Amino acid sequence: MKTSQLLSGHAWSSILTVGSLALLSLGSVAQAQTPPVGTLHVPAKTLSAPPDVSPQLQKIIGAPLRTNWDLRPKTGEEWKPVADAGAAALVKNVPGMMERLKVKVEKTTIDGVRAFIVTPETIARENANRQLIHMHGGCYVLNPGEASLPEAIFMAGFGHIKVISVEYRMPPEAYFPAALDDGITVYKALMKTTSAKKMAFFGTSAGGALVLEMGLKAKELGLPMPGAIASGTPMSDVTKVGDTFATNAMVDNVLVSPDGFCDAGTIVYANGHDMKDPLLSPVYGDMRGFPPTILTSGTRDLLLSNTVRVHRKLRQAGVDAFLQVYEGMAHAHYIRDDTAPESKEVFEEIAGFFDRHLDK
Amino acid sequence: MKTSQLLSGHAWSSILTVGSLALLSLGSVAQAQTPPVGTLHVPAKTLSAPPDVSPQLQKIIGAPLRTNWDLRPKTGEEWKPVADAGAAALVKNVPGMMERLKVKVEKTTIDGVRAFIVTPETIARENANRQLIHMHGGCYVLNPGEASLPEAIFMAGFGHIKVISVEYRMPPEAYFPAALDDGITVYKALMKTTSAKKMAFFGTSAGGALVLEMGLKAKELGLPMPGAIASGTPMSDVTKVGDTFATNAMVDNVLVSPDGFCDAGTIVYANGHDMKDPLLSPVYGDMRGFPPTILTSGTRDLLLSNTVRVHRKLRQAGVDAFLQVYEGMAHAHYIRDDTAPESKEVFEEIAGFFDRHLDK
Repeated sequence: MKTSQLLSGHAWSSILTVGSLALLSLGSVAQAQTPPVGTLHVPAKTLSAPPDVSPQLQKIIGAPLRTNWDLRPKTGEEWKPVADAGAAALVKNVPGMMERLKVKVEKTTIDGVRAFIVTPETIARENANRQLIHMHGGCYVLNPGEASLPEAIFMAGFGHIKVISVEYRMPPEAYFPAALDDGITVYKALMKTTSAKKMAFFGTSAGGALVLEMGLKAKELGLPMPGAIASGTPMSDVTKVGDTFATNAMVDNVLVSPDGFCDAGTIVYANGHDMKDPLLSPVYGDMRGFPPTILTSGTRDLLLSNTVRVHRKLRQAGVDAFLQVYEGMAHAHYIRDDTAPESKEVFEEIAGFFDRHLDK
Repeated sequence: MKTSQLLSGHAWSSILTVGSLALLSLGSVAQAQTPPVGTLHVPAKTLSAPPDVSPQLQKIIGAPLRTNWDLRPKTGEEWKPVADAGAAALVKNVPGMMERLKVKVEKTTIDGVRAFIVTPETIARENANRQLIHMHGGCYVLNPGEASLPEAIFMAGFGHIKVISVEYRMPPEAYFPAALDDGITVYKALMKTTSAKKMAFFGTSAGGALVLEMGLKAKELGLPMPGAIASGTPMSDVTKVGDTFATNAMVDNVLVSPDGFCDAGTIVYANGHDMKDPLLSPVYGDMRGFPPTILTSGTRDLLLSNTVRVHRKLRQAGVDAFLQVYEGMAHAHYIRDDTAPESKEVFEEIAGFFDRHLDK
């Protein structure tokens, strides 16, 4: 049957005065019906934590906006006391996490770079010869020392795998590209004893960006790629492009706004460098040749767009890339509470992904 | 090094007066710092279409809210003129889509169920013996006749594969579970000549729910599973649970609100049946044994939560499930304009997924 025949034999093809009801149909073609690109006015709203998540996650989602989210220190020196105070509060939780997840931590130095060796009590048999490189989050200025450890502990504990967590240099000690350089230094050092394909990079937020930046840098240097990468809610675009910077502004209770503390921290780290450089905004990098990559985000995440944009870029580059998005989670909610079943789920998904893709 | 040693040797562990700055740290533990679950007041905001999508998609995202989104017909008879008017507007676009995508359409009947056979000019060699079953969207009440075809045409044209699009019965002709029954009838009929593993189900919105409902029903009936399922922005929970029902309300310019026309249509179709029945809200179904499933959504989608919740349920059930989420897209934006590169990308991703999982 030809198109013309198909469309001429139906009574409703003669209904021409469809009026506004026509807009009720799904699947209409844009060029035929939509007016020019406009702005959308979204009224104020009140949100509650969703009912279908664990009580632990409900509590995290239901928390008020981060205090001082709009504080914007302008120098590395101004950031240091802020970072130290935050770290002091955070490290108090670390011993409990280590105990519950049965993980031990040793401080070390690898080719001059400070790092922690994070080892679970039980290493899975398939992970006996594998190790992971962790790049922590904190907008390139926060979470010094043991404050960098929660995610590394979650990964080691839930994934039963050894982790090297890089305590990379941050302002005011050093500026771009110090964090990236420290990650690469550790990677090169570990390659002397462990083949690249038995290793993966993982990290969240600035760490989620850094693991992508390390992939780009490894390509540039002609180093072998790791066996896999896990990038959680990456700061993949620090030029403020990304639709959820707008739609999830004041919804994400962690980052809150694209003009908040995290932007200020990144500007200090960048130290005048072009923010659109793929080594600061990796979504603009050429991801061909990347290893299998898993991405994690949540529906309230200010960086949901910048997570899914990386996912699409990877897929367009032919990379085996897997996206997991969690109900209600704002930025990095999954590294808050090791007793939340969703945290376990996030890291077990990542561990399974690594297991499928790393050499033994 | 033991925990106690690790945490005692650092200067900042003695900073006890951390005040509100402590909240600046990432990765803090919820039970230690968050107050009881509360509500979040989100101020009014103005959104523009994101810059990093195609001009075609920008236009779709930038369109105003659907006219009459809050119209709520209460009976099948009241819905009919609304559906017919919408369909009349929509079908005018169908010939152009067919021409651009080089697809032909024949009307047929399969064991008493109305359907369309949608065939691309070129069927890929690997798809020679495969066929797909399409369940269209429209809140179980919209898109009768050829108005159901755009998605089927996109899939056939971009995927180079034969599609059977089920023109399932809708109110006032029939009510729950008529749409599901018609899908199953067609599946059973096609299995007489094509093995289940050479077939996949796909659909969007109500169609995205129906393909999951068909999977659940096939299990219940002891039928073989198809080789794969593609569920686009599924109406997987019609009980209004799902966080993006709130966060993306008045942001998604298609569905707009959980209390709009689509809810009204579903209530009419359900006809008094329990809305939490997995055959109406498939997120509550037991998905163990499901075939590989690909899910599609967008960052502005009112049903983003109900897409990612299905993804998690599938993964928890051990199913090979793949999620793709597109920058800025609201509900089902990817079946609007066949010239938008993002539409092609969505369907090529689905076609590739089918190719990896269907028997030849």
